[in-house]
Amino acid sequence: MSETPFLSALISVLSPQQVWTHPSHADRMQAYEQDWRKREHGKALAVVFPRTTTQLQAIVRLCLESGVSIVPQGGNTGLVLGSTPNSMGQQLVVSTQRMNRVLSIDADNMTLTAESGCILAHIQQAARDQGLWFPLSMASEGSCTIGGNLATNAGGTQVLQFGTARQLCLGIEAVMPDGSVMNVLRGLRKDNTGFDMRDLLIGSEGTLGIITKAVLKLWPQPKAQIAAWLGVQHFDDACHLLRLAREHMGARLTGFEVMNPLAIALVQQHVPHLKQPLPQHSGWHVLLELTDSQSLENLSADTQALIQSCLDSHLIQDGVQAQSFQQTQQLWHIRESIPLAQATEGLNIKHDISLPISHMSSFVRTVESDLQKLIPNVRTVNFGHLGDGNLHFNVQAPLGIAPADFLDQYEDAVHELVFACVEKHSGSISAEHGIGRLKQQRLQQHQDPSALHQMRLIKQALDPHGLFNPGVILSSPDTMER
Amino acid sequence: MSETPFLSALISVLSPQQVWTHPSHADRMQAYEQDWRKREHGKALAVVFPRTTTQLQAIVRLCLESGVSIVPQGGNTGLVLGSTPNSMGQQLVVSTQRMNRVLSIDADNMTLTAESGCILAHIQQAARDQGLWFPLSMASEGSCTIGGNLATNAGGTQVLQFGTARQLCLGIEAVMPDGSVMNVLRGLRKDNTGFDMRDLLIGSEGTLGIITKAVLKLWPQPKAQIAAWLGVQHFDDACHLLRLAREHMGARLTGFEVMNPLAIALVQQHVPHLKQPLPQHSGWHVLLELTDSQSLENLSADTQALIQSCLDSHLIQDGVQAQSFQQTQQLWHIRESIPLAQATEGLNIKHDISLPISHMSSFVRTVESDLQKLIPNVRTVNFGHLGDGNLHFNVQAPLGIAPADFLDQYEDAVHELVFACVEKHSGSISAEHGIGRLKQQRLQQHQDPSALHQMRLIKQALDPHGLFNPGVILSSPDTMER
Repeated sequence: MSETPFLSALISVLSPQQVWTHPSHADRMQAYEQDWRKREHGKALAVVFPRTTTQLQAIVRLCLESGVSIVPQGGNTGLVLGSTPNSMGQQLVVSTQRMNRVLSIDADNMTLTAESGCILAHIQQAARDQGLWFPLSMASEGSCTIGGNLATNAGGTQVLQFGTARQLCLGIEAVMPDGSVMNVLRGLRKDNTGFDMRDLLIGSEGTLGIITKAVLKLWPQPKAQIAAWLGVQHFDDACHLLRLAREHMGARLTGFEVMNPLAIALVQQHVPHLKQPLPQHSGWHVLLELTDSQSLENLSADTQALIQSCLDSHLIQDGVQAQSFQQTQQLWHIRESIPLAQATEGLNIKHDISLPISHMSSFVRTVESDLQKLIPNVRTVNFGHLGDGNLHFNVQAPLGIAPADFLDQYEDAVHELVFACVEKHSGSISAEHGIGRLKQQRLQQHQDPSALHQMRLIKQALDPHGLFNPGVILSSPDTMER
Repeated sequence: MSETPFLSALISVLSPQQVWTHPSHADRMQAYEQDWRKREHGKALAVVFPRTTTQLQAIVRLCLESGVSIVPQGGNTGLVLGSTPNSMGQQLVVSTQRMNRVLSIDADNMTLTAESGCILAHIQQAARDQGLWFPLSMASEGSCTIGGNLATNAGGTQVLQFGTARQLCLGIEAVMPDGSVMNVLRGLRKDNTGFDMRDLLIGSEGTLGIITKAVLKLWPQPKAQIAAWLGVQHFDDACHLLRLAREHMGARLTGFEVMNPLAIALVQQHVPHLKQPLPQHSGWHVLLELTDSQSLENLSADTQALIQSCLDSHLIQDGVQAQSFQQTQQLWHIRESIPLAQATEGLNIKHDISLPISHMSSFVRTVESDLQKLIPNVRTVNFGHLGDGNLHFNVQAPLGIAPADFLDQYEDAVHELVFACVEKHSGSISAEHGIGRLKQQRLQQHQDPSALHQMRLIKQALDPHGLFNPGVILSSPDTMER
């Protein structure tokens, strides 16, 4: 591509090394143009790598002048096509990867300030180095960035006690669609000075502003953490176990994951080197995580007592407690291998849904039965964060049917069926993955009409030219809806 | 007042008993027209009492047609002139007092759904009746409403562990300035379906929508709660004690209140029937609250150990631990008598500020010294939620100077001095009380310019006619700024 005035201007406010264009950088650009699951291959006008807020602001101002739309990108680990460009070759991908420093840790205030391109695992480590703890944690933590975590209000495995990314953030700095820098980068637990601009940007998927820095909440490193793997017969039993675990362990219950028999069977089949904690168990599996700020002794004794009482009452059939940090990691590794195992089994139809916990049993019963009526012998890979009411409810082809054919024939019908059931049970069609471009049309169907209308008004007010991640969350007049 | 078409229409969509007007209801209207501290006496066109969301929606639609502006009001316990009308007699006060039912409790989902006019103490009690706990708590809980708590993002005494009202709410229903009902009344721990309209309305003080219902998070009733009252020499020591208490008690530290010597001396003088826990102590006082989901024995032993180690290291001079629920209540009662005691002493200049905890010592040192330079022998009543970085920093006349003269002479200068010091220490000029009409001009001075600009864009987009609580948070072209 010959150098347009826009690209020349970009290079002049950055440096040639910070601006990648076609065709010279085409190979390296590919990873920034396609999504994590490689479902869609877009084409960018350029990929730029600002190093500072001022550089990012200069980029936004150039885009405003030239009417170029921006796709902000962190680690590009999103699952809903929210951080990659469309195929028109006219959008600018703004990567925050080189804005990647932990700026400070304030141990007395229990906060950490980082640039938005900082990798989540680096933030966790920086906190740990000071004897502190940043509890946001998820499978992609080695490559996702805190800016992306905030833009998508990421969830992960510690939500039960600590909430989603939104609850872990005290303040942000962001470049806004008018080219200004909004500085609400405060490390305050209480601050009632006008509308909550922080939480408006968090979860807005880069459509209202590009987060450049964040102040994050830290906790003391826990003194003890224990994982246990328990086997129950039915999904209902897992719900009952959650209730008991909350009662017995209180705030020390920091994780409660559930996995259906097929999810574990696929891990056994496709990731056979992983040692299964309950290889003979044929029912549902539960991974419990317990965290204590005081002592391992109490925590271990109370966990043992909980397990024993559940065995005595036959609520669980079997159970093991990790005896070391390494064993705990192994248990989590099994849980986190489910996505790989199901991918190996073949493409399936994915849902990231949430429900009131009181509705979950009824939902699972109803949706499983309705799916069997629609597609005899259909299989479901059902796992997730039961403690948060969040299921990754994925529908897999019956044995003997090719996944691609299955998707062709049933994808729309399955989505309709599952989302209708979610709506009937007062749930959400996107618990933690967000909307992106992938679920934008679904959102129009399932979100409250007034809420959608207010969202459109806000988008129009803050980004009247529609240059910030157009087509994500809300439809854009300028982009093909999908 | 003769019945205008607007008032007739109001009566026709409600009932005569739900519409109060001058002069027939003038006496009863007064409590709705003046603020809690009786600083300002406004005059309303009428006060209306809808019983349902549908009625409230009909009111808003009539106001839209007639261009009448609305002042939403809950318990009218706010401290910043955010819930009372101006003096022009043209604003409609919409009281939620008759929308006051707890609608449901979902024990499995740990949520409670209530109408917005429900009194906070009734919600606490409804949760308690099911063995559950709603931790939002403050001195005004007997008369404030949950709608007001959410509209102002109220704080209170349990923020350290549970956050402000925003963190306790999962979903809301609200009537919006376009007359629509926005229903994001979901009981979900995770829900990433577009912009966070809930948190945008929470803390917007009725300027963007009127909350009509809310889903609130509940916790298991704690098994044990202990309060302790400790005496330290200096403010710095209280900060050090906070650090130790967090380390030793972890998530069980649910309250950490600090009170300066004058705050306690005023309580001793003006509320003499209260038994002081440390009557001889001349330094600062700390009220610790500790909560345990497991057992009283552990909690008590650990608290005793913390107190003993602080005595051994001379960090504290003295300390008592409440031995019963009643004693705990008595300790809190002393803390909550400070506002009364200082009011008896005479009007003072109030600030509700927050700071990063790491900046608090420096702030207190600097501001005290600067104030003494400005006003020799000036006294400060300094108390608040140290664990949240929140101080109620109030400046009292020197002995021998009449409070009214003191305010006349120094109010502006003291505000300037204190807020400048807050800003220098990266703090907030309103921690938990909000902005209202009282601090609207201050906000323009101290909030980030881009953030303010975005807030104005949002207000203009959602409420283009400026009918929802005009002049609150942001200036209004139609209202006198103050």
